[in-house]
Amino acid sequence: MANGGPEIEQLIQLLARLPGLGPRSARRAVLHLIKRKDQLMIPLSAALDRAVEAVVTCEVCGNVDTRSPCGICSDPRRAESGLLIVVEDVADLWALERAGVGAVKYHVLGGVLSPLDGVGPEDLSLDALIARAGQFSEIVLAVNATVEGQTTAHYITDRLAGSGVKVTRLAHGVPVGGELDYLDEGTLSQALKARTAL
Amino acid sequence: MANGGPEIEQLIQLLARLPGLGPRSARRAVLHLIKRKDQLMIPLSAALDRAVEAVVTCEVCGNVDTRSPCGICSDPRRAESGLLIVVEDVADLWALERAGVGAVKYHVLGGVLSPLDGVGPEDLSLDALIARAGQFSEIVLAVNATVEGQTTAHYITDRLAGSGVKVTRLAHGVPVGGELDYLDEGTLSQALKARTAL
Repeated sequence: MANGGPEIEQLIQLLARLPGLGPRSARRAVLHLIKRKDQLMIPLSAALDRAVEAVVTCEVCGNVDTRSPCGICSDPRRAESGLLIVVEDVADLWALERAGVGAVKYHVLGGVLSPLDGVGPEDLSLDALIARAGQFSEIVLAVNATVEGQTTAHYITDRLAGSGVKVTRLAHGVPVGGELDYLDEGTLSQALKARTAL
Repeated sequence: MANGGPEIEQLIQLLARLPGLGPRSARRAVLHLIKRKDQLMIPLSAALDRAVEAVVTCEVCGNVDTRSPCGICSDPRRAESGLLIVVEDVADLWALERAGVGAVKYHVLGGVLSPLDGVGPEDLSLDALIARAGQFSEIVLAVNATVEGQTTAHYITDRLAGSGVKVTRLAHGVPVGGELDYLDEGTLSQALKARTAL
């Protein structure tokens, strides 16, 4: 056990399973933790304990929070907008919140339809979405612009057909700050089709 | 609190202080942990608790382990080689152990001399090194090939002059698998000077 005993080895192996960390960076992270035991390792251990205790999945929208319904679902200011944004993942919800999209509500699908990976409609939070869709005036399908994401969007649109709820999707186009030369043809042709008057 | 309450926010901030993780990847890591609560988050929390309890710095060499003297210092097979490898950091010790350098012992300096950063001889584990140097037949200064590393190597060589212990350093040269075209001139000229017969 060159790397300092089974306790350290196990910590390295667990940290290496986090996205963005591999075995080498996990070793560096563990040494960093050990060197900063009081300032970082003990607080991190305590924060993990608290998070394990406190974090729950919101039973309404699928967001993670320390209460259910979550802070977004129980925010009275968000009740009035009538806009429900459907996302694949909690990370997408956080990204939209950081972008400051306003007083909207969310629905986290928990993935996308992917027959190849064995993900069918029953594996996603789709029935819950259909059940609450009637409370909103517009549903924005903010799924990723991948084949699976678009398939999922079509499936949801079909399920909601006839319910009278307006269903929209995010605009395709040139990213803000993006250079045309680096964009793929699909994005460019969509951006041209959806051109707006200056 | 869009990102799900203070417990989650604090966990993100602590993870973002690990090397290799920034705010964005820390958020991804926390979501990954929350999704895999039973397989990853709870084991990681437990492993951190155990490591906080168990990990100590070896009083002989400065390695981190769950006992002091550490597994390397108390390994009877390593007592006979007479070779002491001096490294800046525990990470360097682990790297040499992974390289399988054999039954040697180590001494961790805990840094390098750096007057600009206010690191003087008294901030490093130098007195302890001089005190134990007499037990070895050869001391290899495996410090980094930086200005500070080389300054530290010179300082240690001066301190050990007259003690009768042989002091060596790692060879400079072309890294295994390296391409000459991408190497700096200093390395190339050192590699030529230290050329060996085929």
